[in-house]
Amino acid sequence: MGSVTRKTDPAGLDTGLLAPVRAGADTEAGLTDEAWVQAMLDAEAALARAQARLGTVPPQAAATITGCARAAEIDLPGLALRTRGAANPVVALVEEFTEVVAAVDPEAAHYVHRGSTSQDVFDTAAMLIAARTLRLVLAQLDRTAAALARHADEHRDTLAAARTLGQHAVPTTFGLRAAGWLVAVLDVRGRAAALLDGGLPVQLGGAAGTLAGYAEYAHLAHTAAGTEAADGPSWDVGRYTDDLVALFAAETGLAEPVLPWHTTRTPVADIGAVLALAAVTLGKFAADVQNLSRTELAEVDEPAEAGRGISSAMPQKRNPVLAAMIRSAALQVPSLVLTLTHCAVAEDERPAGAWHGEWQPLREALRLVGGAAGTAAELAEGLMVHPERMRANLALTGGSIVAERLAAVLAPVLGKAGAKRLVARVSVGGADAGSLVDGLLAAAPELAAEFTPERLADLLAPAGYTGAASALIDRALAHHRATLPAGPRD
Amino acid sequence: MGSVTRKTDPAGLDTGLLAPVRAGADTEAGLTDEAWVQAMLDAEAALARAQARLGTVPPQAAATITGCARAAEIDLPGLALRTRGAANPVVALVEEFTEVVAAVDPEAAHYVHRGSTSQDVFDTAAMLIAARTLRLVLAQLDRTAAALARHADEHRDTLAAARTLGQHAVPTTFGLRAAGWLVAVLDVRGRAAALLDGGLPVQLGGAAGTLAGYAEYAHLAHTAAGTEAADGPSWDVGRYTDDLVALFAAETGLAEPVLPWHTTRTPVADIGAVLALAAVTLGKFAADVQNLSRTELAEVDEPAEAGRGISSAMPQKRNPVLAAMIRSAALQVPSLVLTLTHCAVAEDERPAGAWHGEWQPLREALRLVGGAAGTAAELAEGLMVHPERMRANLALTGGSIVAERLAAVLAPVLGKAGAKRLVARVSVGGADAGSLVDGLLAAAPELAAEFTPERLADLLAPAGYTGAASALIDRALAHHRATLPAGPRD
Amino acid sequence: MGSVTRKTDPAGLDTGLLAPVRAGADTEAGLTDEAWVQAMLDAEAALARAQARLGTVPPQAAATITGCARAAEIDLPGLALRTRGAANPVVALVEEFTEVVAAVDPEAAHYVHRGSTSQDVFDTAAMLIAARTLRLVLAQLDRTAAALARHADEHRDTLAAARTLGQHAVPTTFGLRAAGWLVAVLDVRGRAAALLDGGLPVQLGGAAGTLAGYAEYAHLAHTAAGTEAADGPSWDVGRYTDDLVALFAAETGLAEPVLPWHTTRTPVADIGAVLALAAVTLGKFAADVQNLSRTELAEVDEPAEAGRGISSAMPQKRNPVLAAMIRSAALQVPSLVLTLTHCAVAEDERPAGAWHGEWQPLREALRLVGGAAGTAAELAEGLMVHPERMRANLALTGGSIVAERLAAVLAPVLGKAGAKRLVARVSVGGADAGSLVDGLLAAAPELAAEFTPERLADLLAPAGYTGAASALIDRALAHHRATLPAGPRD
Amino acid sequence: MGSVTRKTDPAGLDTGLLAPVRAGADTEAGLTDEAWVQAMLDAEAALARAQARLGTVPPQAAATITGCARAAEIDLPGLALRTRGAANPVVALVEEFTEVVAAVDPEAAHYVHRGSTSQDVFDTAAMLIAARTLRLVLAQLDRTAAALARHADEHRDTLAAARTLGQHAVPTTFGLRAAGWLVAVLDVRGRAAALLDGGLPVQLGGAAGTLAGYAEYAHLAHTAAGTEAADGPSWDVGRYTDDLVALFAAETGLAEPVLPWHTTRTPVADIGAVLALAAVTLGKFAADVQNLSRTELAEVDEPAEAGRGISSAMPQKRNPVLAAMIRSAALQVPSLVLTLTHCAVAEDERPAGAWHGEWQPLREALRLVGGAAGTAAELAEGLMVHPERMRANLALTGGSIVAERLAAVLAPVLGKAGAKRLVARVSVGGADAGSLVDGLLAAAPELAAEFTPERLADLLAPAGYTGAASALIDRALAHHRATLPAGPRD
Repeated sequence: MGSVTRKTDPAGLDTGLLAPVRAGADTEAGLTDEAWVQAMLDAEAALARAQARLGTVPPQAAATITGCARAAEIDLPGLALRTRGAANPVVALVEEFTEVVAAVDPEAAHYVHRGSTSQDVFDTAAMLIAARTLRLVLAQLDRTAAALARHADEHRDTLAAARTLGQHAVPTTFGLRAAGWLVAVLDVRGRAAALLDGGLPVQLGGAAGTLAGYAEYAHLAHTAAGTEAADGPSWDVGRYTDDLVALFAAETGLAEPVLPWHTTRTPVADIGAVLALAAVTLGKFAADVQNLSRTELAEVDEPAEAGRGISSAMPQKRNPVLAAMIRSAALQVPSLVLTLTHCAVAEDERPAGAWHGEWQPLREALRLVGGAAGTAAELAEGLMVHPERMRANLALTGGSIVAERLAAVLAPVLGKAGAKRLVARVSVGGADAGSLVDGLLAAAPELAAEFTPERLADLLAPAGYTGAASALIDRALAHHRATLPAGPRD
Repeated sequence: MGSVTRKTDPAGLDTGLLAPVRAGADTEAGLTDEAWVQAMLDAEAALARAQARLGTVPPQAAATITGCARAAEIDLPGLALRTRGAANPVVALVEEFTEVVAAVDPEAAHYVHRGSTSQDVFDTAAMLIAARTLRLVLAQLDRTAAALARHADEHRDTLAAARTLGQHAVPTTFGLRAAGWLVAVLDVRGRAAALLDGGLPVQLGGAAGTLAGYAEYAHLAHTAAGTEAADGPSWDVGRYTDDLVALFAAETGLAEPVLPWHTTRTPVADIGAVLALAAVTLGKFAADVQNLSRTELAEVDEPAEAGRGISSAMPQKRNPVLAAMIRSAALQVPSLVLTLTHCAVAEDERPAGAWHGEWQPLREALRLVGGAAGTAAELAEGLMVHPERMRANLALTGGSIVAERLAAVLAPVLGKAGAKRLVARVSVGGADAGSLVDGLLAAAPELAAEFTPERLADLLAPAGYTGAASALIDRALAHHRATLPAGPRD
Repeated sequence: MGSVTRKTDPAGLDTGLLAPVRAGADTEAGLTDEAWVQAMLDAEAALARAQARLGTVPPQAAATITGCARAAEIDLPGLALRTRGAANPVVALVEEFTEVVAAVDPEAAHYVHRGSTSQDVFDTAAMLIAARTLRLVLAQLDRTAAALARHADEHRDTLAAARTLGQHAVPTTFGLRAAGWLVAVLDVRGRAAALLDGGLPVQLGGAAGTLAGYAEYAHLAHTAAGTEAADGPSWDVGRYTDDLVALFAAETGLAEPVLPWHTTRTPVADIGAVLALAAVTLGKFAADVQNLSRTELAEVDEPAEAGRGISSAMPQKRNPVLAAMIRSAALQVPSLVLTLTHCAVAEDERPAGAWHGEWQPLREALRLVGGAAGTAAELAEGLMVHPERMRANLALTGGSIVAERLAAVLAPVLGKAGAKRLVARVSVGGADAGSLVDGLLAAAPELAAEFTPERLADLLAPAGYTGAASALIDRALAHHRATLPAGPRD
Repeated sequence: MGSVTRKTDPAGLDTGLLAPVRAGADTEAGLTDEAWVQAMLDAEAALARAQARLGTVPPQAAATITGCARAAEIDLPGLALRTRGAANPVVALVEEFTEVVAAVDPEAAHYVHRGSTSQDVFDTAAMLIAARTLRLVLAQLDRTAAALARHADEHRDTLAAARTLGQHAVPTTFGLRAAGWLVAVLDVRGRAAALLDGGLPVQLGGAAGTLAGYAEYAHLAHTAAGTEAADGPSWDVGRYTDDLVALFAAETGLAEPVLPWHTTRTPVADIGAVLALAAVTLGKFAADVQNLSRTELAEVDEPAEAGRGISSAMPQKRNPVLAAMIRSAALQVPSLVLTLTHCAVAEDERPAGAWHGEWQPLREALRLVGGAAGTAAELAEGLMVHPERMRANLALTGGSIVAERLAAVLAPVLGKAGAKRLVARVSVGGADAGSLVDGLLAAAPELAAEFTPERLADLLAPAGYTGAASALIDRALAHHRATLPAGPRD
């Protein structure tokens, strides 16, 4: 058992100091070393209970094993050192856990990890951890989506400049921009929910995927019980292992896989794909907030809070720190997921490194996405929107932001190419609407026959050229409502 | 249009010389520069037809545009150079294409790319290309799955050593190993099929996602047609753009997105996730073939074919070249997909680099997966299996490969730990079954009371310790059958 | 020999359509399939000449081989297909090349690829290609550095707002910003030059790194020449192979490695590290240009040129397309280099996939960096700088951009924390300098005893708070001069 | 100050449980949260001392600051939470540290972090951490190199099969294989040593790279000291900041950069390149050990140690766990370094996410390489080599492993192609040397005129076909000796 001294050594603390995006996140407690040990013990206990339901393990032993399965009993730093013996934490954990159980009931200790292998316990634990984390992430995505839906609806008519390659392009609305973020978040939400609905699978394959160890113990128990002649027709190994997998899944709340997936890492790849998409989707939202909150744009601000966004040097600054933290996750997670992908090339019946290389990247990716999701919810809910700055920026380029429209409208008179050339020429430099009208009429007097100055000025009004923005917002909001759980809706 | 001289310059050929895995693959023709240009022209034509169906473009113009939309008319090397003007190929292509159309019908030329923007055309083309490629990949995965299913079934009782961390672990069957590859391939197949079933979406947003340009031209056409008073209630921009997106989707065979996804790159991320999973899943199969075909193992061979597997130095060699090529793809694709992921952090309404960075990695990943899928089908179908070598290798470690079983069976007599220790001690060095039995009885005479030498020898037979291997093969084959299209089955 | 028909099939063209950053770059011609074939033939010819100098190959045969070593003789598309036989292009190339030589002199054909192996030829060719490309990149970096040095010097006093996390921070000068880009480019330049100076190595190891094939043929030639008794003391295998490696290096212009590096991929990793650094360093320059050229900032513009920066939809736009293309390379190259890194885990004496996975990523990374370097030179040389916009932006935040300074200067009167608090409070909202002075004196009347309003206003002038900017520019320029070749300077 | 309760919460422990390769490594203690805080405090103290040497800070204050700079005083979990306020740990740390200093001497507290900015402190701390870690890694690489040099020398004549694409290729020696690993390790060692010799640089730029804050305080101190008229000619800002950077470098033991490198991340990229190369170079060694220790090859074993290599299921197993752990690092580090590379695209004068995304990947990469280096030293030193198994494996393919030689020797009689074909034909199937001789003479009776059966048998002996293996080992050992520090050598 770990001595108190070792347990309290702060040297090994990893508190998120170098990853502020996740410091204090609601997902953090579920991703510590202790939480992983607990999940492994949960898997051991669930296995014993499943075996008990099939008669392979005495019910009392399963109950004792379940009762003892507490990570608090385990010496974590000592365990970490002993993971080197087998290159995985399960062997040493099972040894220590067996002692814990034996101290309560030596007989029950014989049934710990019965017929099992490290990978069954570790992979199942990883799925438990991932499922718990993803559920928390889902809740944060829902908060974010709700906030963005509100922005989309409220700012349906808030005119703003759309920017492509950093340049003013055409008018849009802040509502449509928020709707874009919303649909992106719903994409992530949908993929995460589908993954959880389909169910992350238990791992149960025994030493190399045949489940032979489980079957052997079961058969021994079965024959010992004298319920039939050994090797008799009534004991069917396939039926037993099918049942065992099903009961293990039921006990853990995870799903049943088609086969043991010890070297078929689709479940890890699926999780990785969702985490990468989550990170960059939130990263896109954050990137937009950063650009929109640049001093010169100032169209949005992060939510104000005491001590938030402060600089150690510059007292006047209000840095978009939430967005910066989310971006930091968006830069890190894809690489971690890449490692998961490479690790899927898992040779033989258990690879010599590729399995071992998955663990820490999976945890780090879960941590960062957990942190980013919470941070994004905070950002979305508190985002301060400045329509007047949007309007001011829109005016910067005079009427040239509707040059596309002008070119279309003038084409019947000037020809398609002629209209485009004229508009390009007069709209350079961001003249205001009035001078633009004058410029057009001066450069192409033939326009006067078709267009009054007033009509031209109308055409230059950004508000008249937002296309289907409002209808698109409606589509996005309807899509959002469709993802909400059934119940009273507006 | 492109002079013959420039077209025939071989300097720019990219034939797969440095990527043998894709040289000659059935997916190659769909991924050339020409194919991308064709897909962009297909998008332009489909757009014109969709607009024609809504009255924005004259039907005759749409027909002419469609008829002219042939990549063979375009000077490819010249076009590539001119892509630098806009940092994307669409602007220059539209210019050249407009000339092509104008040469046939100057009036129709006015309707080329009407209201559109580069990204609508390019992204839609990319989805067309990806969908076509994925369908071909699916067919190759089906070939692979069918071949692996056959191996799984045929080698249901072919005993082999399961290996973990490179060491013999417990017995398994080659059939179960093939079933593992099969289920992995079906995982990829399922995800690719779901993506195609859900439908890759058209992109249609106009300059910055509001569809304003399309709406403007439509409205101009509508008013010009005199069917109603300008700005009258009967013309609804949202209804028009909804219809336009739906018809554009119908004309291209792609799906309708919720919103324009110009900076919501979920469709690209979804494709990327499938491609990465495909590459590493086939890479795992290839890695196993490589290890199993090592000179010392020699359990499988690649299909023989004249000129295959030859070495420039060593005349005796038969290299597992199909597997090596598949591995080369498995090493490259995840990184390319990573770039796609990073590019999803697409700022503003069109990013200044992140969109542009997607194109070549997407193509390369499609090429490599296309090549790997065809190569894997060839490998799976022709794989030569050597059961006698598997049996010989299994015998290398004497009875110690069933040490796990022995430890279980002897535990009631010797205690769990005692049995494990004894087995570990006597099984070192790979003694044959006979000496192992002698060793056990010598070291633990108390065993004699419970076990005859014959019973011990029986316990040491690998064939008796394959657990649920056969039942698991049945699960895998049933899963395979469930993915096949309906029709007469066995 | 390749038929004209196959050679002219445009379907296989890869012209840079999807990678505009490299379309037309000066590095492109050296990276085509044809250029790689030429480099492999160059390696074959150099090997024959080196062997001829040591008496292993008749001088006439080496001359014939050298004379025939022209890629134009090779059927490229056909060769690509035949690479699949050996999973590398050398085997098929040697076959075809041998026929080319035999058509000129059947006897000489016996000496093609004598004692050699595919990897010796391919890796040496790759180093030739990389060295040639890096030299061109170096020249472009020098152009870029020269242009940036000019900007740094010219804009030594051009005041601008420094921005951290997108917010105005303190004043700086555009010259210092350019000096930062300059030093970064010099970092890349220095690492690339060091790599070229140290010399990229030839590969020469024979079938598996022992050089046995070369030695065998040499020994056969030596004994056949009757110059000594077989196995006599005067023939020393180590001396021969040392000489062979040295002469091969001399003939190719590459360096001698310590050992064959067939599975010690340091040379590839070194190239990769330089390419990745080059891509992101130029990417940082591009990112800054993009941000500074945003419509709202407008502090710089890309060089104007007909057809540059145009949009297919918006006639008024001038997009920063050079920067966008450079960014696209910065997003792609790191992933390609990552693949090179993974491929360095090259098992045995030649890996089954990891070697094969290097080739295309190496080429693509060279292409993209070649393109980005040329594009960056164009951008740096033509960059249009708008000091008046910088000054206008600097004024946006009133005096608060020197809040750091104010806090320092006022601290003796108000205390450190008090000064910081006061400054933070009054500088919110970007009041102009005048109101800021009033605000300070109103909020802290005790300041009046120490500071006149004029003194306070002086303190608020950005020009007075650029720290060591000018001295730092001098350091950067001196550093730049130190990298220039000796000769008349300034 | 942190309460004991929070400090001892084991929930946040990160002990290496999921990264066994680094659990207990000698580099671990230098990479904890506490170590990073200590390094930041070291940077603060060094800055105060440097400023004191220039008269900006009173010597007594600098001494007090130095004396208080102890991480043990800081509440780590609390600090981590407060990092979110500024998105970096320095702001909160400075606040807490200032209180610690103030408790000792309120006056000294005014001089904490004077004129500084978060990035100066953090980046300098990161360089301190990296330099310390790399020095430890260097020592482990030296251990590894020494052990590999010993293997190379001892096994100079230990024959073994060289393998390419998993197939026996030609004979080699285990000594040459070890020499290959050695040279690779020396490559890494050389690059790491060059980096440390060149010196990792301090960061000192102030708020945005102008050093204005430092200069302002210095100037204030200077004028307050009355040593000259304000703004007099004798105070030179450039000279002051040059001196300050030099003294800061001297106080920290780091190097002076040309310019502040806040957004020129070459130092981080350089470290990343070394870490990636280290990880994959050790990974290649580990991959070879894994393959050579496969049950069927059994040519090497990992060092035996109680509890090492055990399996939770299979009592007989001795898993190559050291190699597996090294491989796990080789799979993870390149991705982490990739993130560092991407983060180098650092916009403006401080990026909003790219800087923040560097920290954790840098730490993780240092941790993993630190762990892998120690593990590799353990593996190299204890590696058990089995020459008799190598010889037995070599015999598996009969004489066909020297087919390359046969083809060369028989070519003068049979023609180049004829010899190659004959050898390929008879060597299939790994006949033993005797039957191979018979087969050759039967298939090509004309050989008898030139070769006696004895001569042919001689040609088939692997020991006669190791080429320059021994000479290459000498080259590698000489290269190794050249890297050793001067002193008495053999």
